[in-house]
Amino acid sequence: MAAILWAATTMMAQTTKKSFTLDDLMPGGSTYWNLQPKYMFSTWWGEVPVELTVDEAKTLFTAEDLNAILGEKIVRSCTNLTFPYADRPIVKVQTPKEIILVDFKQKSVVWRGAIQQGASALAWSPESRALAYCIGSNVFVQTADGERRQLTTDGNDDIVYGHSVSRDEFGISKGLFWSPDGQRLAFYKKDQSRIPSYPQVDITQRIATTYVDKYPMAGEESEDVSVAVYDVPSGKTVWLQNDKPLTDYMTNLSWSPDAAKLYVFELNRDQNHMQLFGYDAATGAKDATPLIEEKHPKYVEPLHTLIFLPWDATKAIMQSRRDNWNHLYLIDLATTVKTGWHDAEGGGEVLDRKLTRLLTPGDFEVRDFLGFNTKTKNALFIGNVTHPLHQTVWSVPVSGKGKMQLLSDGEGVHSATLSANGSQLIDTYSSPTVARRVELTDTKSAKRVRLLDAEDPWKDYNTPEITGGSIKAADGVTDLYYRLIKPVDFDPTKKYPTVVYVYGGPHAHNIQASRGYYYRGWEIYMAQKGYVVFVLDNRGSEYRGLKFEQATFRHLGDEEMRDQMCGVEFLKTLPYVDADRLGVHGWSFGGFMTTNLMCTYPDVFKVGVAGGPVIDWHYYEVMYGERYMDRPDENAEGYASSCLLPKAKNLKGRLQIILGYNDPTCVPQHSLSFIRACIDAGTQPDLFLYPGDGHNMFGTDQVHLHERITRYFDDYLK
Amino acid sequence: MAAILWAATTMMAQTTKKSFTLDDLMPGGSTYWNLQPKYMFSTWWGEVPVELTVDEAKTLFTAEDLNAILGEKIVRSCTNLTFPYADRPIVKVQTPKEIILVDFKQKSVVWRGAIQQGASALAWSPESRALAYCIGSNVFVQTADGERRQLTTDGNDDIVYGHSVSRDEFGISKGLFWSPDGQRLAFYKKDQSRIPSYPQVDITQRIATTYVDKYPMAGEESEDVSVAVYDVPSGKTVWLQNDKPLTDYMTNLSWSPDAAKLYVFELNRDQNHMQLFGYDAATGAKDATPLIEEKHPKYVEPLHTLIFLPWDATKAIMQSRRDNWNHLYLIDLATTVKTGWHDAEGGGEVLDRKLTRLLTPGDFEVRDFLGFNTKTKNALFIGNVTHPLHQTVWSVPVSGKGKMQLLSDGEGVHSATLSANGSQLIDTYSSPTVARRVELTDTKSAKRVRLLDAEDPWKDYNTPEITGGSIKAADGVTDLYYRLIKPVDFDPTKKYPTVVYVYGGPHAHNIQASRGYYYRGWEIYMAQKGYVVFVLDNRGSEYRGLKFEQATFRHLGDEEMRDQMCGVEFLKTLPYVDADRLGVHGWSFGGFMTTNLMCTYPDVFKVGVAGGPVIDWHYYEVMYGERYMDRPDENAEGYASSCLLPKAKNLKGRLQIILGYNDPTCVPQHSLSFIRACIDAGTQPDLFLYPGDGHNMFGTDQVHLHERITRYFDDYLK
Repeated sequence: MAAILWAATTMMAQTTKKSFTLDDLMPGGSTYWNLQPKYMFSTWWGEVPVELTVDEAKTLFTAEDLNAILGEKIVRSCTNLTFPYADRPIVKVQTPKEIILVDFKQKSVVWRGAIQQGASALAWSPESRALAYCIGSNVFVQTADGERRQLTTDGNDDIVYGHSVSRDEFGISKGLFWSPDGQRLAFYKKDQSRIPSYPQVDITQRIATTYVDKYPMAGEESEDVSVAVYDVPSGKTVWLQNDKPLTDYMTNLSWSPDAAKLYVFELNRDQNHMQLFGYDAATGAKDATPLIEEKHPKYVEPLHTLIFLPWDATKAIMQSRRDNWNHLYLIDLATTVKTGWHDAEGGGEVLDRKLTRLLTPGDFEVRDFLGFNTKTKNALFIGNVTHPLHQTVWSVPVSGKGKMQLLSDGEGVHSATLSANGSQLIDTYSSPTVARRVELTDTKSAKRVRLLDAEDPWKDYNTPEITGGSIKAADGVTDLYYRLIKPVDFDPTKKYPTVVYVYGGPHAHNIQASRGYYYRGWEIYMAQKGYVVFVLDNRGSEYRGLKFEQATFRHLGDEEMRDQMCGVEFLKTLPYVDADRLGVHGWSFGGFMTTNLMCTYPDVFKVGVAGGPVIDWHYYEVMYGERYMDRPDENAEGYASSCLLPKAKNLKGRLQIILGYNDPTCVPQHSLSFIRACIDAGTQPDLFLYPGDGHNMFGTDQVHLHERITRYFDDYLK
Repeated sequence: MAAILWAATTMMAQTTKKSFTLDDLMPGGSTYWNLQPKYMFSTWWGEVPVELTVDEAKTLFTAEDLNAILGEKIVRSCTNLTFPYADRPIVKVQTPKEIILVDFKQKSVVWRGAIQQGASALAWSPESRALAYCIGSNVFVQTADGERRQLTTDGNDDIVYGHSVSRDEFGISKGLFWSPDGQRLAFYKKDQSRIPSYPQVDITQRIATTYVDKYPMAGEESEDVSVAVYDVPSGKTVWLQNDKPLTDYMTNLSWSPDAAKLYVFELNRDQNHMQLFGYDAATGAKDATPLIEEKHPKYVEPLHTLIFLPWDATKAIMQSRRDNWNHLYLIDLATTVKTGWHDAEGGGEVLDRKLTRLLTPGDFEVRDFLGFNTKTKNALFIGNVTHPLHQTVWSVPVSGKGKMQLLSDGEGVHSATLSANGSQLIDTYSSPTVARRVELTDTKSAKRVRLLDAEDPWKDYNTPEITGGSIKAADGVTDLYYRLIKPVDFDPTKKYPTVVYVYGGPHAHNIQASRGYYYRGWEIYMAQKGYVVFVLDNRGSEYRGLKFEQATFRHLGDEEMRDQMCGVEFLKTLPYVDADRLGVHGWSFGGFMTTNLMCTYPDVFKVGVAGGPVIDWHYYEVMYGERYMDRPDENAEGYASSCLLPKAKNLKGRLQIILGYNDPTCVPQHSLSFIRACIDAGTQPDLFLYPGDGHNMFGTDQVHLHERITRYFDDYLK
């Protein structure tokens, strides 16, 4: 399959065409969307694929139709409409004030539910039509007939109900979980009273003030998390009777199809021992033994809920990296086994008390589990099966009898949504040679009907050559993938200033076989300005398996930098790269990498721009930080050696640190401590803050930021 | 007298000599003091002038002598010793732990008083040997025999006793005031409970925290100030019975010689009506009528206490700018007059209920009242009598009979300390032709004995030419003074980049006829780097009279900039100034001016560095801000037009804003709001913060800062 990768460069250099502005290239820019490949908004109504435009849900109705039924102009865009019932001609219209179900065949309003003012974290059950939500830190349920019930009363800045916990790590993104029948609501309680509030300052007030930003730093006091189940018919709340420390993590809450049980992936604070437990949803009683356990000397990271088979409530799909790669496993909850602990390919140990079977064998990662074809009883997923950079759509029999089937040509990076019974999917993808395509795919036959083949939106522009490729990592063995962008109007006899863009941390990648090899708009701008841009996914990044990721455990930065320096060595072999004019830029983990590279290799990199950097992992948060670094008292050496403060004295080149003044992720203490260390050491970094912005800049601030970053390289690297 | 001014330039350009480092030129630099003219520490023991060195109080004793008497090595330097009793051979030794009185003739310890741990704001009475001090926000008195009494108990962050009030404006610098006999202690109470704390962040903690920084912003809630008198013999405290709003200012507390009365200069929050009131120190009862009243349509600013004549307790010296210039007035408290309100030369109105007479007539300002020659009954002062830039020492008969007498040659900038009876003074001065001299002056005969004539410490260095001069202000009439520094190794045929250094605000001046015309070390560094440096004291600055200062009232920045632009026009007449490479730098009010100039004249100034700037006078404090701008509700137009936020869009050149991250004076809200406004307007300022530093940088931070400022001009102006 290797041929599919490097066959083509996406956008060949062309002269006498238009040039881009930053507004054209940055998602926050005013003209950005004009220069993106055409997109198709779509959804499913049962087995009917529905294209959604601002004005219509094509083939079904127009916004005007809906507004006529509603008697007022409520629907301003159809792009957010959903069809909650596969078998009924009902469309859900949601406004800030209400949820409305409209029968678009009968042309009548079926149901309306008001949304209380100030409600957040809305969770609506199509089955019961009950709406769960939060007002501030308390949970409310509004039944289908409009009765409002307040479930909790003592919520405040310290005690928070119904919101996401554990800083959105471990796949957690919300705090309200309806049972499949909409009769029971599981919700989180987070007690963060022991966590100090990081002093974030709001300068927009008459006199600047602080606001609450509870931030648990590595090794320090953390959250207590617990889970309650509210039963709508009885109006009673029970708490899951967990005998573990409250500082353990309770993740990926999963309802059994009959709503009788709630499954929880439980993880100790050390994050090296995961147990999957069932709880009685009526009483809160915990099962005596876990269904599944996983241990790892580095860490275990549960990221996905159980998904029960629609046709067999005794079996569920679990995702795990126990065997190094993220794969689908089928758990048979009805079949107890006694295997005992055994070693797994990922380097840890596993104890399955229920019969568990790998569904997706191979050296690849499942990126996205899509669901099931309930007729063929196949599971559908996206994974980098054909090549690490290509994410393609696959079908595999849940029975285990039969091979995985590719549902596309095996190239590019795909995303897909399934129809109600999974017999079809809408597949949106791009590749180095495809700007964007949307296809309707039969998941049984793999037959595809093309719905959209977007033309290259940049055909009138002078674009740079973008190539992908691979080099060996610093371990001499592992393949690392890169993207290389040559300057616009490239002259091979010239030597160009060259900027390395880097992220380098876990749960992210920068190279994939999508349009332009996943280029970032700023890179095109820099190419237009006459820079070579180089991006390399070092070890530690995602979709390459657990060992690849865990190479960095307890000493973040070290292997990542060694790999990046392999990239530099590669760059030095290119005759058009001016090794005396190397720059580096990255944000967040990439800001950590940038600062680290500038101070560790001060004679290699002349100019750097580090955004929202981690400087000292002591200042990073418990959930993410302790996973990769352990606690400071367990890994003092690793915290010390990865800390950039002692390296402040090494700074030679020009380094600008940029951060959101209100960054709640890499709190300003990181950057400001580094600035202080530089001052004390007599080195001269530069600094810029975006007041009011968080960890990233959006909208026009993003354009401003990249103008700033570009100017810095123009000032000092050109 | 004009001849004395421009006769000489101080330091002629010389080649093949040494160059300065920033460490040589900045007060915080490691080698700074090696390159300053020799200094003489001195004090008076009655009529005996005593030169103090580390090792000895010359002519009297050595540190070793004292330590032998003390029996341990307590005195490590003699430079801070004082002689509290003119008529007794007693020297006061103060350590962090105790105050010790040593009889250096009898070679014995006369008295020791411990200093309680944590004590601050120490005030010791030589007469009673009682020590007043604060622990936190409460006041304590320790009597001579060591008895400790706690005077207040409810002091905290909101209620503060015994410390300075009104943010050190109005000449206030402390909060504990012993009566002349040391038996009564007046002290301030400050209730700042209604003032919000500006969120200052300490990043040095494990997790960053805020600390209390009560900051009253213009027009917002302010302090309540009151004054108590504690009577040591009775142990009783009375409060001054003031019927005015507590938000009025109570300044320049002055004891009558017999300790029976306490005089207070009282000023309404509008700062346009001052009343001098007497209070009965035993009861706190307020006199029915004020002794003196002053009103001004702009503002009145009492800055000095009453000083009673040593030979006549019914008369006192008051300082006032009622007649435009700051002058000494003699008040005869025993003689009531009925003059009614009358207009004064300064533009306001005056009502004297006690006979008041101007002692120092003339178009000059008294800068420093030194005291009296009690034999000749003359008052001694320093003022710019001979020329606005020269501060010389003068004597004037208190009787009013006889002329002012000059006690030096009329040149240079002098400071002086009087002997106990004022018959002699030690005069330290420099001028454009004198590095530093110290002279012992007979205040009756004006005869002088030279104690020190310091040689030029820069004689081996390649130094720039520094000249002083004057131009007309934008009003076409007023003389403004400047300092002009040419590049080292000046070549008149070249064109040089030129930097304007500016402050421009009240209560400060940058040009005077001291060494190098009051040069700042960084200017020498810039001259060495090849820049012309120009500094002009615009209208609004100090020692030029009230009208000169008040030209800027209610529209800070406007006249100041017009005057600075006259400076630019002058620079453009100089053939060696490159008008296409003009930069500007200033700090605090000068940061306001720099930012304002960069945004108001974007085509004139190419590069600016603004330190700790005021951006919006709404964010500045009540006491200083409302004096010059009135309250925002009274002067909405002035606040709006002086606000730099709407000008952020005009920025064209390179502007770096630098501030102490913990600046308690121009709080970070100023700079950060401007940065935000620039981002919103799409302009690109630069920014740097010094974490942990306040409004100014000291020590090595100061060197780092000026390296930074220099680099910015080198990067963009050269």
